[in-house]
Amino acid sequence: MERVRVGFVGLGQRGKGMLDTFLAVPDVDVVAVCDVYADRVDSIASTIKEKRGMEARKYTDFNLLLEDKELDAIYIATSWEAHIDQAIMCMKKGIPCAMEVAGAYSIKDCWRLVKAYEKTKTPIMMMENCCYDKFELLCTALARKGVFGEIVYCHGAYTHDLRKEILGGNVNRHYRLRNYIARNCENYPTHELGPIAKILNINRGNRMVYVSSVASKSKGLSEYAKSDACEDKTLKDVTFKQGDVVSTNIICENGETITMTLNTSLPAHYSREIQVKGTKGCADMDTNMVLEDGSIDESHWNPAEFNKIYFGNAEKYYEEYLPSFWKNITQEEISLGHGGMDIFLVRAFIECLKNGEEMPIDVYDAAAWYSITPLSEKSIKHHGKPYKIPDFTRGKYKNRPSKDVIKL
Amino acid sequence: MERVRVGFVGLGQRGKGMLDTFLAVPDVDVVAVCDVYADRVDSIASTIKEKRGMEARKYTDFNLLLEDKELDAIYIATSWEAHIDQAIMCMKKGIPCAMEVAGAYSIKDCWRLVKAYEKTKTPIMMMENCCYDKFELLCTALARKGVFGEIVYCHGAYTHDLRKEILGGNVNRHYRLRNYIARNCENYPTHELGPIAKILNINRGNRMVYVSSVASKSKGLSEYAKSDACEDKTLKDVTFKQGDVVSTNIICENGETITMTLNTSLPAHYSREIQVKGTKGCADMDTNMVLEDGSIDESHWNPAEFNKIYFGNAEKYYEEYLPSFWKNITQEEISLGHGGMDIFLVRAFIECLKNGEEMPIDVYDAAAWYSITPLSEKSIKHHGKPYKIPDFTRGKYKNRPSKDVIKL
Repeated sequence: MERVRVGFVGLGQRGKGMLDTFLAVPDVDVVAVCDVYADRVDSIASTIKEKRGMEARKYTDFNLLLEDKELDAIYIATSWEAHIDQAIMCMKKGIPCAMEVAGAYSIKDCWRLVKAYEKTKTPIMMMENCCYDKFELLCTALARKGVFGEIVYCHGAYTHDLRKEILGGNVNRHYRLRNYIARNCENYPTHELGPIAKILNINRGNRMVYVSSVASKSKGLSEYAKSDACEDKTLKDVTFKQGDVVSTNIICENGETITMTLNTSLPAHYSREIQVKGTKGCADMDTNMVLEDGSIDESHWNPAEFNKIYFGNAEKYYEEYLPSFWKNITQEEISLGHGGMDIFLVRAFIECLKNGEEMPIDVYDAAAWYSITPLSEKSIKHHGKPYKIPDFTRGKYKNRPSKDVIKL
Repeated sequence: MERVRVGFVGLGQRGKGMLDTFLAVPDVDVVAVCDVYADRVDSIASTIKEKRGMEARKYTDFNLLLEDKELDAIYIATSWEAHIDQAIMCMKKGIPCAMEVAGAYSIKDCWRLVKAYEKTKTPIMMMENCCYDKFELLCTALARKGVFGEIVYCHGAYTHDLRKEILGGNVNRHYRLRNYIARNCENYPTHELGPIAKILNINRGNRMVYVSSVASKSKGLSEYAKSDACEDKTLKDVTFKQGDVVSTNIICENGETITMTLNTSLPAHYSREIQVKGTKGCADMDTNMVLEDGSIDESHWNPAEFNKIYFGNAEKYYEEYLPSFWKNITQEEISLGHGGMDIFLVRAFIECLKNGEEMPIDVYDAAAWYSITPLSEKSIKHHGKPYKIPDFTRGKYKNRPSKDVIKL
């Protein structure tokens, strides 16, 4: 494979944003673009023409994109509802695909995804960019080097005030709007769960066995919809099912627990709140802190006083533990999406594809991480009842060796 | 009641520490002291003699303390296991009591406590000092003034590295040791749950209805017990049941959710991690931060960068919202335990007792907060199965007016 010819499906905010990222990888051409909205297709095709002087083939029907014989891969950035079906269709056509983050709508869909892969062996990567972010990779490296001792617990969150984006759904055609009206679940688990699952070797010697979730009442969106801040006045009397804060507990087979918080319809600043706790040390994203046993000044009863002193002390671990691409990141890489992680993610996909290597985030990871959504939905309906998480590897996890998203 | 004659039962670390605090309240005498260990009794009686020139009556049998006719109140700071029985015995004797923090061992015990109160009407206060701490009272005041809008979620924790204390149990005679060996539960819920329950008006128009907990594996204590750091070499092969991190989800009748983290056997710095999230704003103890809708700079994708800027911004709310005793705190008050909260707590108990007023943290609060422990124990055994939390007010919560621990 000399050049990698990529087709894009889903040209909303994410698809549009990732165009530059894919085009920044040498030998990648985006040769076909597809969306149900023709204006998006035209717009992104024009951008490609401007940047590369190439005429991308334009589709509004995904089935026709699949018939395009000149594709080496498809990047799926459509609505959450479409990901799994489209990924399966790609695999059945033998077209490798890169599937964006989301949660599933049923456990059956997760199994369909796994079975399609096992039948076709068509490469598929789940595009969890946060697996490539700086703090997450620092924690992974620290975990591998034993700095945390035996890890017993991890926490993560998706705290992101999306009220404006969600309630702009009728204008910006964002699928979040209908989801927040119709569902109540951990609807976006992978940004935090992905990196944590990698740290804990989920599907590789370990697996997630139980999940339980509770949801707070839903007040953020309805209050915002009634306020002057909301431009779409048709939403003022809409009822939203999605609770403002969803709290999820996961138990792993090797005894670790994971907690996750979804918080997307309240005023807040963005954070994934990554925390790792082990017998020898711990790390915390919000304070950019790594603490090792024996080096913790115990005289502080006020956590803010303590945190003021230790804030940012993770920096001193960067030189020794960060992967080289984070140490040597360029301004251009930073500009290619989410502070740098997007370009590392896309490079990993393209490199594995070109070299015929195993994808760093594979179909079993995708199925396990996506499965939290439908299970959380059931759990919330039953006041936090725990549900079993299927073993999508059907026992293979026991002997699959640990594999990080990059060599650490 | 001119002078308040207090008897102390339980003269370990907490009882000893609270002696100065009680003696700092005008008109309080500690006239009797009781512990099963005679050396503790002698030691604290000597201290009273030194400080006040008074001979405290000494007991090693709690039944004899109860027969002491010259007592206006008993302060209970014994082992967790003894609190409820001793409080009930006090109430039956008509001796008002101040019962220290803990968790219950059964729901039946919580009901026995409530019934003893309802039968005797003897005053009882649960001594949750954290209800009087600065950040908790700031949040309560902000909640009452509507700064958070409608609150939908609160979080709290008891993160405290107690490995040395727990494993010193054979020497320091601390009841934690046997508890960590024999139980696996949210064994210490009230430091964070107390203030949160007050903010959410639990037992006063609202109540907690479901609780579910999961526990991580137990590794911190056994690893520490094997290490050179552990002085008691007899513990090196002991098995500890208590998981290092217990994560608890609670659902309230009015739709709020509460999450709690117990983390006492891993390296960590002390924090109760209080968080309050509402439709108009949020607060976070670890960064001493209050954020109001509309004032949050959304350009920061890195939470540490954001937190660096906003860190400590809660200070600007102190002048307007903090109760006066926190604004005018003296060095002496600070020295009287846990940065000041202990003296405010003890004063509240003594004042209510002298004035015949309703206790600010009453028997229903005690029962509800204590009940989390046995319910969490069952839940952990069943992978996080939710359990119903009894309504210890038997319907009265519906019409009980909101009551803060102090006037805000």
